[in-house]
Amino acid sequence: MALTIEVCLTPKLINQHLLEGKIAVVVDIFRATSCMITALVENVKAIYPVSTVEACLSLGTQGMLTAGERGGIKIKGFDLGNSPFDYMGKVSGKEVAVSTTNGTMAIEKSKNAEQVIIGSFLNITATLNYLIDQNLPVVIHCAGWKEAPNIEDTLYAGALTYQLMGHDFLTENDAAKMALDFYLQNKNSLLKMALKSDHAERLKKFGITKDLNFCLQVDKYPHLNGRLMGSKIVKI
Amino acid sequence: MALTIEVCLTPKLINQHLLEGKIAVVVDIFRATSCMITALVENVKAIYPVSTVEACLSLGTQGMLTAGERGGIKIKGFDLGNSPFDYMGKVSGKEVAVSTTNGTMAIEKSKNAEQVIIGSFLNITATLNYLIDQNLPVVIHCAGWKEAPNIEDTLYAGALTYQLMGHDFLTENDAAKMALDFYLQNKNSLLKMALKSDHAERLKKFGITKDLNFCLQVDKYPHLNGRLMGSKIVKI
Repeated sequence: MALTIEVCLTPKLINQHLLEGKIAVVVDIFRATSCMITALVENVKAIYPVSTVEACLSLGTQGMLTAGERGGIKIKGFDLGNSPFDYMGKVSGKEVAVSTTNGTMAIEKSKNAEQVIIGSFLNITATLNYLIDQNLPVVIHCAGWKEAPNIEDTLYAGALTYQLMGHDFLTENDAAKMALDFYLQNKNSLLKMALKSDHAERLKKFGITKDLNFCLQVDKYPHLNGRLMGSKIVKI
Repeated sequence: MALTIEVCLTPKLINQHLLEGKIAVVVDIFRATSCMITALVENVKAIYPVSTVEACLSLGTQGMLTAGERGGIKIKGFDLGNSPFDYMGKVSGKEVAVSTTNGTMAIEKSKNAEQVIIGSFLNITATLNYLIDQNLPVVIHCAGWKEAPNIEDTLYAGALTYQLMGHDFLTENDAAKMALDFYLQNKNSLLKMALKSDHAERLKKFGITKDLNFCLQVDKYPHLNGRLMGSKIVKI
C-alpha cells in the first residue's frame, strides 16, 4: 500500500497532523536546518536544539559551543551565528547548543513523531533514500517565518514530495498537493523563486546573500542525514 | 504607489495580518461564500453569519430562515443546507441566518478590516472591479477546512491575486506569491485541480458533485458583490 505524505506549512498548524508512527522531516532552509546539515558534515559531535537563549547559554557554561539567531542576527555573546559558514572548520568533535527563531520550534513541535529527520536542499537525495528505506508515512514540517508559511520551505516540501511520489508515496493533504504544484511551477528557477521570499529579502539586508546561495545548493552533501535522537541531533 | 495583496491561507493564521485600513475578501468556495453570492443574486434581503447552531436557531424564532452545515451536512431542523441550489427560488425578500464550519468563522475573524467582502469564483470579476475602485490594500482570507489550508480557496486567492496584479497591486507576503504560482500551474485545469481537494472528496461522498461544479463557475454573476455591513451581508 502506498505511503502518505503530509505537508505542514508552519508549526502553527502542526496540531492538525497526527505524528505518531510517522517520520517528521523538519525544514528551515534559511538557515537553521541547512546549518545543522553543514555542522554534521563538519563532524560536529551533536547538536542540541533549544527554545531559549538562556537554555543555550546554560549549555554553553557546560562546555558546549553556543549558536543561533533572533530576527536573523547572531545572538550577543554566542560563539556562532546562524550561517553555515560559521560552522566550517570550527565544530569538529564538539557539541553545539542551537536556538533560532523558527527551526528549533519546529523540531520541538515534531517530537511526537516516530522519527525526526533534518531536511535541507543540501542533502535532499540522502533524505529521500532514507525515507524510502524506512517505509513509514511522512510529514514534512516547514518551519516558516514567525509562524507564517514561507516560499523556501514550501519549495523544499514540494521538491521532496515530487521525489517521493516516484517511489510509491502519495500526497495526503491539500497542503502537500499545493506544495507539489508550487514546486513544479518553479522547478527550473528554484533559486530565483526562493530569493523572492520575504525572508530572503530580510536576510539580503544583512549582507548575507552568500548564505542564501549556499543553502539552495541541491545535493551538495548527498550521503548524509541528521536525526533527532532524544534531545540531540546526530549524523546517521 | 502600488497597493498590497496579502493572502491568509486559513483563519488560524489571520492574526499574522494587520486588517485595519484594508479590505478583507473572505472566501469559502465549497460552499459558504458561493452560497452567499447565490443568495444575493436571488434577492435575499440580508444574510446574518453566526458562529453557533443555537444563535442561528434563535434568529430563526425571530422569523429568519436558518441555513448551514456541520461537517458538510445540513443541520437538523434548519430550513436550508449549504448548497447554492437550496437558495434558489426560496429567499427573495427574506433574511437568512447562516452558520457553517469554516466560512462564518473566517468572516467573524475579518471584522477588524475596513471592509469585508464576500469572494467566490461566481463573481470574481465583480470583486476585482470593486477592489480597483476602492483603492485599498487587500487581504484575501481563505476559510480553509477546519483551520487547514485547502486547494479550492487557495486557487481563488491565486486567481484574484493574478488579476489584481494587472492593476497595479503587488504581492506582499509569501503566501500570496505561492497562491499565485499555484494558480498559474493550474489555471487551465481549475476544475480538475479543485476537485482533487480533500474537501471535494468528502463532499462527493455526500453525492453533491453538482454543487462542486456550480461553485467553480467563473463569472456566472459578474456584476454583483456582497459586503458585510455591521452584522449582515448585503448586495452592493
